[in-house]
Amino acid sequence: MTNTCSSLDNSTPLDESVVVINKRQWNVQASEFSKLCSNPIREIVDNIKKPAASASTKKLIPLSLGDPTVFGNLHCPDVLVDAIVRNTRSMQHNGYIHSAGSEVARAAIAEHFGRPEAPLTTDDVIITSGCSGAIEMALQGLLNPGDNILLPNPGFPLYRALCAAYKIECRLYTLKPETNWEVDLKHMQTLIDDRTKAILVNNPSNPCGSVFSKSHSEEILEVAELNKIPIITDEIYGDMVFGNNAFYPMASLTTTVPVVTVGGLAKQFLIPGWRVGWITVHDRNNVLADVRTAYFKLSQNILGASSLAQSAIPALLTPVPGSIEEQSLTGFKKRFFATLEDNAKFTIDVLSKIPGLEVVVPQGAMYAMAKIRTDILTTIKDDLDFTQKLLDEESVFVLPGQCFGMTGYFRIVFSAPHDVLADAYIRLEDFCRRHQ
Amino acid sequence: MTNTCSSLDNSTPLDESVVVINKRQWNVQASEFSKLCSNPIREIVDNIKKPAASASTKKLIPLSLGDPTVFGNLHCPDVLVDAIVRNTRSMQHNGYIHSAGSEVARAAIAEHFGRPEAPLTTDDVIITSGCSGAIEMALQGLLNPGDNILLPNPGFPLYRALCAAYKIECRLYTLKPETNWEVDLKHMQTLIDDRTKAILVNNPSNPCGSVFSKSHSEEILEVAELNKIPIITDEIYGDMVFGNNAFYPMASLTTTVPVVTVGGLAKQFLIPGWRVGWITVHDRNNVLADVRTAYFKLSQNILGASSLAQSAIPALLTPVPGSIEEQSLTGFKKRFFATLEDNAKFTIDVLSKIPGLEVVVPQGAMYAMAKIRTDILTTIKDDLDFTQKLLDEESVFVLPGQCFGMTGYFRIVFSAPHDVLADAYIRLEDFCRRHQ
Repeated sequence: MTNTCSSLDNSTPLDESVVVINKRQWNVQASEFSKLCSNPIREIVDNIKKPAASASTKKLIPLSLGDPTVFGNLHCPDVLVDAIVRNTRSMQHNGYIHSAGSEVARAAIAEHFGRPEAPLTTDDVIITSGCSGAIEMALQGLLNPGDNILLPNPGFPLYRALCAAYKIECRLYTLKPETNWEVDLKHMQTLIDDRTKAILVNNPSNPCGSVFSKSHSEEILEVAELNKIPIITDEIYGDMVFGNNAFYPMASLTTTVPVVTVGGLAKQFLIPGWRVGWITVHDRNNVLADVRTAYFKLSQNILGASSLAQSAIPALLTPVPGSIEEQSLTGFKKRFFATLEDNAKFTIDVLSKIPGLEVVVPQGAMYAMAKIRTDILTTIKDDLDFTQKLLDEESVFVLPGQCFGMTGYFRIVFSAPHDVLADAYIRLEDFCRRHQ
Repeated sequence: MTNTCSSLDNSTPLDESVVVINKRQWNVQASEFSKLCSNPIREIVDNIKKPAASASTKKLIPLSLGDPTVFGNLHCPDVLVDAIVRNTRSMQHNGYIHSAGSEVARAAIAEHFGRPEAPLTTDDVIITSGCSGAIEMALQGLLNPGDNILLPNPGFPLYRALCAAYKIECRLYTLKPETNWEVDLKHMQTLIDDRTKAILVNNPSNPCGSVFSKSHSEEILEVAELNKIPIITDEIYGDMVFGNNAFYPMASLTTTVPVVTVGGLAKQFLIPGWRVGWITVHDRNNVLADVRTAYFKLSQNILGASSLAQSAIPALLTPVPGSIEEQSLTGFKKRFFATLEDNAKFTIDVLSKIPGLEVVVPQGAMYAMAKIRTDILTTIKDDLDFTQKLLDEESVFVLPGQCFGMTGYFRIVFSAPHDVLADAYIRLEDFCRRHQ
């Protein structure tokens, strides 16, 4: 290509600058923002080497990914399939909808998650591109670069990744394994200063599988109240609790602390790929008026969840009482949660007997964290070494605690079928006995 | 709530600070970022008053929204409905997929949009939450705050909105109505300096309905080449062209200028609400290696389009040659584009005869821009006044040119059924005659 440009007037001084500029070479850099974006799980996992094909003849069992659909033993409810088939055929859910989500879907979320003591209206709900999108929006609307947020440690790595991208300082508060991953409240308190703009709570917890008691959630609310800091609570695993544990939505336990709750359809309805999440703003004293407006403004940037995917929300969250659909959903939940509870029990039973491991009893979600006793497993250096060797020798893949900020532990996802878990746990036991 | 906090050790000095802090009141502000986010269309449209119920007895005809599904005359293809029904029932598209989109969907996009002279592989494709998400990512990966970008004027308002949010300076290059909205290349050239990091092109154009000739696109590429500035091209309306006009993808016309193309299923397959968009990176000389990596990193922040919605991409973009599905899709496109072409012709025929209006002949997409001759329509002040009065008196809603940066014009969306358009244009003619 020559440096003539037919439509430009070559007689103007402009053209000289063009000639000069043309001596440049292509030099295109990525943005600084993109360099701040990284996925901590990926960075660690990408450094875990795949075992050579010859290393183990056993079939790979991945207990690593928080996706309950991978093994095919758990399916989304029939009510959801029927709703999507119906709505696709109707061609009534193809056009643009409100940037914060369709009115009927937001009304259904408000009705389902509202409580007499923590009411919600459509104006309190913003539908987002997955719960990840809700977390991003919750942060973006509330915090400025240089502000800080309190995050659980161990915790879901996306919190830290998004904070890094938006230059929000993360201050990690300790969850104590000895009290089933309750918050070290005193430690939390020491982290707070004038630029602490939010406390993020994740209950039930990924990666811990813990569920906070009512009184413990109230203690966290007291810290928020004392310091006048709003709470962002990630309740994507809400209701997924086992045994005598009960789930108390944070917003239902306070009349004064503003609570921004994030959630979604992903885990409870077994469709994590569909990207349907939401923010619900609990704010009875109008403390978050400005922030709620911000969330609605942010939703206009790129619009949220697919209109088709969110069209199923009313069928899932507000079925007609007594209808076949409601009964079907009740049955689905019962079976799904019972499977998880059985798997949790089985996991505890087996892992607690394996020398060198100390499993913290999971109370909800689909995760368990186990401590690696390197004083017993003497040929294991740390959690990364444990994970790599377990993969190499037994073709069982679990994530090292480092992914979640907790060295010396590993996380198991126990949503796999019972026989797959049984196989994996036998291999795990063999592995640990061999490494004593 | 008292200022005791049962789990805190009340004997420590810490507690005193707690008591002091507790004197604070709640004071929660929205982020500065959220205050930069606004939708220029909304700000203008929100100031347009709805006509009083008594003002006009006529039924509202909205020719304002760029959503071809609103009137129900245009439907997405049967192939799409069948694919979604099949994929929903299979329950094989519910889990997490690659953050940049499923491999098969990205392969289909690469195959469909790749050209022998501008090849694409799966690694060149990032699937996003709608074309809006693609535009956001295209900008975020390439530009830093303080950099500038050249944007078309008139142009799609989201470009400016996203730039404002990310503190990217917008420099608006003029599109000339007298040459069917071609770029004023000399003006474009004067806007470029050392911090110009991208030239954004939208072809076919919203709001203009224009389609660039091959030679004009080549002229734009020359400016890019001379100044060594990559092009971001929004081709969401690609192939939607009428008469003798042909659409030339920008990437197919250069071997040296790196081109980031954004697109999606929204308009061509009539599912704007589904939020399925993509970036394709055309970069034969490895100029954008860093930027491509950035796009993949950015895709990890919140994941892109719904796994279910993107599961239909192969069926739509790469049907088996000669299959019933391919024939069905060919028929769909033929009917759809013929409808738009008929509507475009009808719009030109009618509007060009209305005194006080000068319509610029649309060549593609589903838009036409018309100039308001206030020297003839003497009781009309400007485009906002025209729009408001047309709504008040005739219940026809069009968007003022101000929404797109072009005072003195209005935009018509002509995807409505013929009889609705006919009704609207009669009212428009009555309105103009009354205001001479």
